[in-house]
Amino acid sequence: MKPAADQIRDSDVRGVACRARQAARLLAMLSDDQRRAALLAAADHLVARSEEILAANMQDLITARQAVEAGAMTGAMLERLKVRENGVAEMASRVRQVASLPDPIGQTLMATELDDGLTLYKISCPLGVIGIVFESRPDVIPQVASLALRSGNAVILKGGAEAAHTNQVLVSIWRDALERFTKMSPDVLNLLHTREDVAELLTLYKEIDLIIPRGSRQFVRHISETSDIPVLGHGEGICYVYVDRAADMKKALDVSLDSKVQYPAACNAMETLLVHHDIAEQFLPEMIARFQAANVEVRGCSRTVKLAGSPIIPASDKDWATEYSDLIVSIKVVASTDEAIEHIRQFGSGHTESIVTENRETAKQFMDTVDAASVFHNASTRFADGYRYGLGAELGISTSKLHARGPVGLEGLTTYKYKLIGNGHTVDSYEKGERSLKHRSLDIRHVPDGAN
Amino acid sequence: MKPAADQIRDSDVRGVACRARQAARLLAMLSDDQRRAALLAAADHLVARSEEILAANMQDLITARQAVEAGAMTGAMLERLKVRENGVAEMASRVRQVASLPDPIGQTLMATELDDGLTLYKISCPLGVIGIVFESRPDVIPQVASLALRSGNAVILKGGAEAAHTNQVLVSIWRDALERFTKMSPDVLNLLHTREDVAELLTLYKEIDLIIPRGSRQFVRHISETSDIPVLGHGEGICYVYVDRAADMKKALDVSLDSKVQYPAACNAMETLLVHHDIAEQFLPEMIARFQAANVEVRGCSRTVKLAGSPIIPASDKDWATEYSDLIVSIKVVASTDEAIEHIRQFGSGHTESIVTENRETAKQFMDTVDAASVFHNASTRFADGYRYGLGAELGISTSKLHARGPVGLEGLTTYKYKLIGNGHTVDSYEKGERSLKHRSLDIRHVPDGAN
Repeated sequence: MKPAADQIRDSDVRGVACRARQAARLLAMLSDDQRRAALLAAADHLVARSEEILAANMQDLITARQAVEAGAMTGAMLERLKVRENGVAEMASRVRQVASLPDPIGQTLMATELDDGLTLYKISCPLGVIGIVFESRPDVIPQVASLALRSGNAVILKGGAEAAHTNQVLVSIWRDALERFTKMSPDVLNLLHTREDVAELLTLYKEIDLIIPRGSRQFVRHISETSDIPVLGHGEGICYVYVDRAADMKKALDVSLDSKVQYPAACNAMETLLVHHDIAEQFLPEMIARFQAANVEVRGCSRTVKLAGSPIIPASDKDWATEYSDLIVSIKVVASTDEAIEHIRQFGSGHTESIVTENRETAKQFMDTVDAASVFHNASTRFADGYRYGLGAELGISTSKLHARGPVGLEGLTTYKYKLIGNGHTVDSYEKGERSLKHRSLDIRHVPDGAN
Repeated sequence: MKPAADQIRDSDVRGVACRARQAARLLAMLSDDQRRAALLAAADHLVARSEEILAANMQDLITARQAVEAGAMTGAMLERLKVRENGVAEMASRVRQVASLPDPIGQTLMATELDDGLTLYKISCPLGVIGIVFESRPDVIPQVASLALRSGNAVILKGGAEAAHTNQVLVSIWRDALERFTKMSPDVLNLLHTREDVAELLTLYKEIDLIIPRGSRQFVRHISETSDIPVLGHGEGICYVYVDRAADMKKALDVSLDSKVQYPAACNAMETLLVHHDIAEQFLPEMIARFQAANVEVRGCSRTVKLAGSPIIPASDKDWATEYSDLIVSIKVVASTDEAIEHIRQFGSGHTESIVTENRETAKQFMDTVDAASVFHNASTRFADGYRYGLGAELGISTSKLHARGPVGLEGLTTYKYKLIGNGHTVDSYEKGERSLKHRSLDIRHVPDGAN
């Protein structure tokens, strides 16, 4: 009845990868409607079988509770593992949302008539097979599976051992839906089970086009160093808010507080607040009071300590280079926007930095000079997120400058190919000067999708 | 008089990289006109001082001739080293051509109104500092320097030892032009001298954003394996022409011959010709005669040997996986388009593959299914080139699927940043449901460049 579920127990990682590669080739040929329909069928099937998902999650939670009692797991990890009552409906709704996004593949990105009857098209297409290695949260599966399949890629997942039952059931339900209701092979979605499986996956550079690790900085670094396959992963997020001398006081307080406390564990939460000295005396006492009222531990440079209004911890050099991911903030008073920019250059991670100012020139200088994936003016760093950016969902936030930067959605899972359509054209006649290239740009809005 | 020339003798690679990083920051702030003017000034100065360039080249050629006589260098390498009479004028003309390309940075790639007064822009920007390591040809310097500076990047070059004098003079004239006539710091253009310098460069992942190796496959692989810095390099080019059963005979002969003989040392030259068996008997004798008339050594599968019409060498399994880069071709008869596609999948390098056919459906199937940077219909593989594609010039041809694929021009040297401009917006009010995001796409043609 369910060959799909059995098949994914296969521990032959190379076999899984080869079948995924084969399935990806067929998947790339499916139409937009067919890929969209496959997501909708999977969403419906997840809802229809939500009891199975909750039951599997219960099994994982029982083991997790024992681990928490034995001190081997934190309460926060247990919380992230839990699929709530309406959790499956939420997962399905996110899958449907990805289905509703515009097709990222087969798009004409550029079209140039090189000469009469010789036209070049640049067309977006899937990467192929993507490996995603993540930690406990099971809701990652529907999110990344829908992004991968929507963009025409097969995917091989490996989740945390804590969520093994939940992940297994999610994947097998999804594969079952593909097999029964769609034109997509179930081999487009695969689950690996052990660390050894991942180690083997990382060696298969001929079969896997991209590895996306989601987890701690150490985890991402380990994957990058281990594999010959290209890796797209976010590194650390040491994010800044810089309160300029020309800041509006209310905006500065609101943006700084939100950037720190709205969800401190997120990589886009602020770690260090930089404050122009001209405004520090007026701004810091109230800011620090608001942080403390929100249970934020405040650490400051010597000037901040002096101006704080209430006792705070002196910051050490280590603080400037630390991603707390917690209700802790470090504050530094700077003499100028240049000093703020220089501090960010020295200690930042290129993730997300925000300036609060009413001076547009200063804002422009900050935003143009700071070398980060996201630079904000009068807005909380917490906006740096694929969903909030309108990308539908995200695979992570890249602090790399190559391929994809910042929140990564569907587009980060695509590449392109050049298609050249001629009529027997040879280079020789151009080199001899008998003909010459015209390079006439075509308006891509009038070029049909997929070009040929 | 020429501090620039002296400075580049500096063997402190980290110092060079730090000054390049600093110069890149200032460079990124220059306007389109200023970057354009710097290229034009350099082009003029190269022409004005061409005698120095030719004299330095003569020095390199004397050493090279001794190496050729001693059997330590090939005649072809010597030829590539030579700067001809009109060579400097040609270099300058290519630099001016890059100056005339549209500005690749500060472009608005996407704009979305997230909510009232909260607008997100995706803006193209330079990568930062690029390291380019190449073999002998000195004309690489003006080509890659102009691409790097046009796109707002600083560059650190290391050329072949054979061209040391020529490269040194080219770089010092260019730096001198920048210093005397432009707003660009000469530290945007740097030359390293030894292999040890390169080894050190490859460790400076904080200062260098991208390494581009240009050279043999072994060379590119060595660089990729050695460095933690992202590498953009073309691997091998095993390119194919597939002559379908529905091919026009003249087009098949012309495209196949051009793909092989027009410049066999190029990475986009054809190595293997695949021929549908229904057309093989008619096509092969004439094709092989034309190859042989052009001094091409022909190796074929057993069926090709039978149909050849004249004696050819039987191909071994090794032939299918070899980039000859020479006047040698391997020919294989296949039973179907699927078999051709499968052969390319198994042995190809994802560079450039062409189908010759009058059947549009077959062409579409081939172009959609073959996973290569460039897929052609009725055109020579030799068209796969940045200049011919209208990219102005090229840094190389990438067979990677990430960041840049196929011929890489200015765009491959850019990344983007997200700019979010708000008015004190916090995430909290959206999470509490007090406000909701609107995600209204803006027409980027009506958004000013650079956004803020």
